[in-house]
Amino acid sequence: MKRTLIQDLKENKDSKISGWALKIRDTKYMIFIILKDRSGKIQVSIDKNHQEDLVKKLEGVLPSSVISFTGKMVFSEYVKDGKKEFLPSNLEVLSKSDAMPLDDTASLDTRLDYRWIDLRSRKNELMLKIQSCFVEGMRDFLLKNDFTEIHTPKLIKAASESGSEVFEVKYFNRKAYLAQSPQFYKQMAIASGLERVFEIAPSFRAENSNTNRHATEFTSFDLEFAYIDDYTDVMDMEEDLLIAGLKKVKEKYGEKIKEVFNEEVLIPSKPFPRIKLQDLYQELNQRYNYQIPDTDIGDMNAETEKLTSRYAMEVYHSEFIFVTDFAKTKRAFYHMRKNDIPQGFDLIWKGTEITTGAQREHRYDILKKQALEKGLGKDIEFYLEFFRYGCPPHGGFAIGIDRLVMLLLGIPSIKEEMFIFRGPSRLTP
Amino acid sequence: MKRTLIQDLKENKDSKISGWALKIRDTKYMIFIILKDRSGKIQVSIDKNHQEDLVKKLEGVLPSSVISFTGKMVFSEYVKDGKKEFLPSNLEVLSKSDAMPLDDTASLDTRLDYRWIDLRSRKNELMLKIQSCFVEGMRDFLLKNDFTEIHTPKLIKAASESGSEVFEVKYFNRKAYLAQSPQFYKQMAIASGLERVFEIAPSFRAENSNTNRHATEFTSFDLEFAYIDDYTDVMDMEEDLLIAGLKKVKEKYGEKIKEVFNEEVLIPSKPFPRIKLQDLYQELNQRYNYQIPDTDIGDMNAETEKLTSRYAMEVYHSEFIFVTDFAKTKRAFYHMRKNDIPQGFDLIWKGTEITTGAQREHRYDILKKQALEKGLGKDIEFYLEFFRYGCPPHGGFAIGIDRLVMLLLGIPSIKEEMFIFRGPSRLTP
Repeated sequence: MKRTLIQDLKENKDSKISGWALKIRDTKYMIFIILKDRSGKIQVSIDKNHQEDLVKKLEGVLPSSVISFTGKMVFSEYVKDGKKEFLPSNLEVLSKSDAMPLDDTASLDTRLDYRWIDLRSRKNELMLKIQSCFVEGMRDFLLKNDFTEIHTPKLIKAASESGSEVFEVKYFNRKAYLAQSPQFYKQMAIASGLERVFEIAPSFRAENSNTNRHATEFTSFDLEFAYIDDYTDVMDMEEDLLIAGLKKVKEKYGEKIKEVFNEEVLIPSKPFPRIKLQDLYQELNQRYNYQIPDTDIGDMNAETEKLTSRYAMEVYHSEFIFVTDFAKTKRAFYHMRKNDIPQGFDLIWKGTEITTGAQREHRYDILKKQALEKGLGKDIEFYLEFFRYGCPPHGGFAIGIDRLVMLLLGIPSIKEEMFIFRGPSRLTP
Repeated sequence: MKRTLIQDLKENKDSKISGWALKIRDTKYMIFIILKDRSGKIQVSIDKNHQEDLVKKLEGVLPSSVISFTGKMVFSEYVKDGKKEFLPSNLEVLSKSDAMPLDDTASLDTRLDYRWIDLRSRKNELMLKIQSCFVEGMRDFLLKNDFTEIHTPKLIKAASESGSEVFEVKYFNRKAYLAQSPQFYKQMAIASGLERVFEIAPSFRAENSNTNRHATEFTSFDLEFAYIDDYTDVMDMEEDLLIAGLKKVKEKYGEKIKEVFNEEVLIPSKPFPRIKLQDLYQELNQRYNYQIPDTDIGDMNAETEKLTSRYAMEVYHSEFIFVTDFAKTKRAFYHMRKNDIPQGFDLIWKGTEITTGAQREHRYDILKKQALEKGLGKDIEFYLEFFRYGCPPHGGFAIGIDRLVMLLLGIPSIKEEMFIFRGPSRLTP
């Protein structure tokens, strides 16, 4: 018999259900099992006096085992949760579980050691499905808008961008490196004539830092598109992209997010507020008596980001705010500049930066000059070549999808949000 | 003025178009430029006597430069290609090209050195868009069928599966490795309760081999799903998946594929023919006098795959054929076995294997035994743990999307199909 999902069971119809035994309660006359599959849960009730064969099959079977039952669903006033129960005529234990190695009191580190068990919680299951859905919504928007999905190499010859935070790979008899981002290659796609591209792929950062929002490997949602007039086109695109993703999530999971995470999915309206960094400093100073530390002038830090969100909410009733006009010393060499000001932005959401975006410098001579200024030489020569044989004006940005979902659901740490977290001291499971 | 795509131009309406100057032909009275954007091409005609300002702006501008024109499209009997031309009133050179470093006679290696220029050909542009579309079609099918997209780590602690073909990474003060496939982690997702998962991500293989179908880095379309009855469920799923992808491609690009690649996109019917390896050997022997070499007994080789496709076409009129019942010595330890026969398959398309799939062994004790048999010990202990706390029966497979599109379009080498190829002696651009 083919399996039926618990949510699809029909009263009194012979069916087979399969799933995890969340709880097994052995009472004097009855055994009650809470069985869970991807669609829901149901109580399975076994009459010990009349179903000795089933009782025997369950001997030594612990919760978290996987069991298949054939039988019938009936409505029952006695079942608190759902008013339904499943009366099995037979069962098969598909997979026996050992005793659980962790319980509700386990530390985050222990939970990460047993991540596959940790992920079985309703919260975590939902979180992974929401991430899939969020990405789906954004991707669909891009595909509808004539973007092409590309897959760029993660093994690269030279330490890109800066060199200090790149993982080194033994590549046959020489060295290779892991790409920190697809930046150079999505720009190559533009030089290849694709006009509009995106990629969803791992990025690698050899940063030896342990924060709640950094990982050595994470999934980056990157896009780049050509024939923009200036970087406001890039901000416009990001607004539409996020709105498409959030709408999809709200439609499918809005209610559950409220129930399980106690968070409201808000669909922002366009345009998101936009403020120049210098004006922002002034606002934060006047309103919250906040003074940016000297070392961070021309840039933002974690504290600035938090206050910026507070400002956006208080003044614009907006969860999102773009900040522009950063100092050129604080931005990558490939950001286009106008009057020495980088033509890019950060997007802040719920107190955290989720994107850096910009119009890129597509003019070979200026790009080369800006690279030299930052002390970048031989390592990026291959990249400069992309701009020697015609390349349209273009811009783009990247979003870390784990951070995005972490903020959406109010999860305190990226470690708990990622399917499997990777940090300087964590390479397992 | 906002840019208009060439395909959307309306007669006599003031418009701006932007794109690559494919050709620039300077005649006595006129300059003709073939301008190309992502939607198509058009001839731009400049009257040298009356548009001296435009002529001046084009001085020293070589083909492959990027130019923006404002003006009007008109219909014209004189234009062979399209019967339309664009009469500009102004132009802006957005990006000047140097002289092209390669021409039609360039070797494959030179073309790969300048991949971003090589990709501008109509064939290559179309190829990348078709890959994006094929993947979109397959992914949509999975999302509609309740699959969740996951992102598994590529940095792993132990050399998985075998150890001989894994890239080593310097990970702070220790070693890590690059995942050869998401196999272990998509199975972890099953043990996490997700039931149906897929991932599209890079896989890394440190194989020092130079063939037309191998790369050290490639994009793998992987899926895994639970509560199967046996491996025929996995084959059924792959049939539906490929049909969904091919339908999407045929609908959007079928005509163009015929025109540009001279290939017909055929939508296969279900079920694909299925044959046991031993029976296949017999058929190939009888029909083509082919004898499998002793070293390959229990498996297939390139020659067998070619003949298998010929057999499938001749006997079943099918481009696809599943081959089952391989020898256990030739299959991974995690394939479930029944009567000592691995419960899996290869799928052959157009003379080449595109998938290995199987029901996985989900029972801890048996899995451990099979791993030890293959000499795998400490490196996979973390993986065996996934099966100790309940794991439903499951199966899955992987498809290399580059190989898939290579076969679809009749492209002779994976080097020409991938956005950027990576091999033992190629890490650039």
